[in-house]
Amino acid sequence: MSRKSEKSRTTLLVLGTEPRPRLGRLTGRVRIAYADESTLAERLPSADVLLVWDFTSHAVRHAWPGEAPRPRWVHTASAGVDHLMCPELAASDTVVTNARGIFDQPIAEYVAALVLAMAKDLPRTWELQREREWRHRESQRVAGTRACVVGSGPIGRAIQRTLKALGVTTALVGRTSRAGVHGPEDLDRLMARADWVVCAAPLTPDTYGMFDARRFGTMQPSARFLNVGRGQLVVEDALAEALRKRWIAGAALDVFADEPLGPDSPLWEVPGLIVSPHMSGDTVGWRDELGAQFVELYEAWEAGEPLRNVVDKERGYVPGH
Amino acid sequence: MSRKSEKSRTTLLVLGTEPRPRLGRLTGRVRIAYADESTLAERLPSADVLLVWDFTSHAVRHAWPGEAPRPRWVHTASAGVDHLMCPELAASDTVVTNARGIFDQPIAEYVAALVLAMAKDLPRTWELQREREWRHRESQRVAGTRACVVGSGPIGRAIQRTLKALGVTTALVGRTSRAGVHGPEDLDRLMARADWVVCAAPLTPDTYGMFDARRFGTMQPSARFLNVGRGQLVVEDALAEALRKRWIAGAALDVFADEPLGPDSPLWEVPGLIVSPHMSGDTVGWRDELGAQFVELYEAWEAGEPLRNVVDKERGYVPGH
Repeated sequence: MSRKSEKSRTTLLVLGTEPRPRLGRLTGRVRIAYADESTLAERLPSADVLLVWDFTSHAVRHAWPGEAPRPRWVHTASAGVDHLMCPELAASDTVVTNARGIFDQPIAEYVAALVLAMAKDLPRTWELQREREWRHRESQRVAGTRACVVGSGPIGRAIQRTLKALGVTTALVGRTSRAGVHGPEDLDRLMARADWVVCAAPLTPDTYGMFDARRFGTMQPSARFLNVGRGQLVVEDALAEALRKRWIAGAALDVFADEPLGPDSPLWEVPGLIVSPHMSGDTVGWRDELGAQFVELYEAWEAGEPLRNVVDKERGYVPGH
Repeated sequence: MSRKSEKSRTTLLVLGTEPRPRLGRLTGRVRIAYADESTLAERLPSADVLLVWDFTSHAVRHAWPGEAPRPRWVHTASAGVDHLMCPELAASDTVVTNARGIFDQPIAEYVAALVLAMAKDLPRTWELQREREWRHRESQRVAGTRACVVGSGPIGRAIQRTLKALGVTTALVGRTSRAGVHGPEDLDRLMARADWVVCAAPLTPDTYGMFDARRFGTMQPSARFLNVGRGQLVVEDALAEALRKRWIAGAALDVFADEPLGPDSPLWEVPGLIVSPHMSGDTVGWRDELGAQFVELYEAWEAGEPLRNVVDKERGYVPGH
């Protein structure tokens, strides 16, 4: 009881103005304050808990107090934590948690949708339909092809499961080699024989720009590259060049170094490139799931129970198996 | 030996001018003659075996000899036999075989590609990319949805397996109710609760026009209809109307009553309709597989062994389990 009443003075600061379903459950149990990018720095020192609901914002990085009072816990409604991590937050005793689990299956389905769409030449089918032109083509079988999925967290593993269910032989590459997961030393070899290279890695100093001209050069001319991780994992100019020079047969980007992609970006018209607006994980009800997940974590935190989804702040993700 | 030398006088008549890979294996073992639509009637009486390589042609139906000498065996390089069946052929002792097995997995993948593309709103993504417009949308999960697959042959069963692998609860509807297969009496009920209705049935007098205004009216407004069977299974005007009136959320047709679809067809521009040019089963190497399958059947026939893939000429398909 004493713990509860102590916690009842908790201040929860929410960054972001998008709809926040399910948070109503916390009404009366916690003082809820709101911030946007301009007010975050001012309000952060008085918050016990920070909920980063607007996961597109980089404001936390800029506003994080050095030595001043700061939240004891930061939760982000996203799988990646790259948008909020900074040396001061990493060095502090503040706990960071993420939305691990919410996006796994949706993103895996999205990757399967893109793989199948490319194999079956659906983009060309839409183009021909616009032109009212009946043009039969041969398409490709997906079963029996090979994928290399980079990123061995829950999202990468869900992608592996889904592609395997479609008969695709799928290798997983993680930060270190372990049972069922290849280490980075195998990446070039696996990329060279893959029909599909799928990037679902967290963005960290180690992974920044890892898909560059050299790596695209190792791929087969018939292979395709997909990114559902973070934009900065890919050297976008190098990918555009690889597509223009037909080093590879196609690519799909759902994430970009600068989001939203502006109308002047040359990426919209790179031949063989499918551009989608960072939506791979966002299926109907996703905000409800994110809200419910935070409430569940909050209740554990309030009860003094250990938190799930705790991010290793040095590595930049939740360490798994 | 005597049988072989007798068979060496066999005349194989091939209808169609498309590339015919793998038939070279029969060189010297059979006299091969060729026909197109204009010469078929004249050459048919002198043929022992007819290979319908051009499976888009309806010429056999028109040219089939009534009482005159006729081929003892007709093989069609297609799953459906609707384009060649006629009362005279059905009544004759000529054996008809088809390409059962070749198209199962490719068509199942094609259906999965369309289902996922519709769930993930990919057609709109392409449209927005053309317009250089970044517009985030929520998409749908496929896992947990329900499909009703009409057609319980190898193609329908492959579709069921593939959709199940994606977490879609999938009911199969066939001509008669049996283990794992619903009879036609369950169709309306299953269509009414399905998120995906997939037509992969053979075209027979029983199935002609089976998807009509009444049936589209039983579907949920959020549901989609896919046809990879034959165009005449669907009343196309009724489908177009159902889409315009938003009785259903979308549809994809790979087959049409009149193929190829002419540039003036109104179907190209029906809202929410994906039009593709009868290509669902045609993956790279398909002609080789069709050629190899015929050679294998021919060798069995030459050796006097029982033929596989024998079509029940009354039902219009190869009876299965």
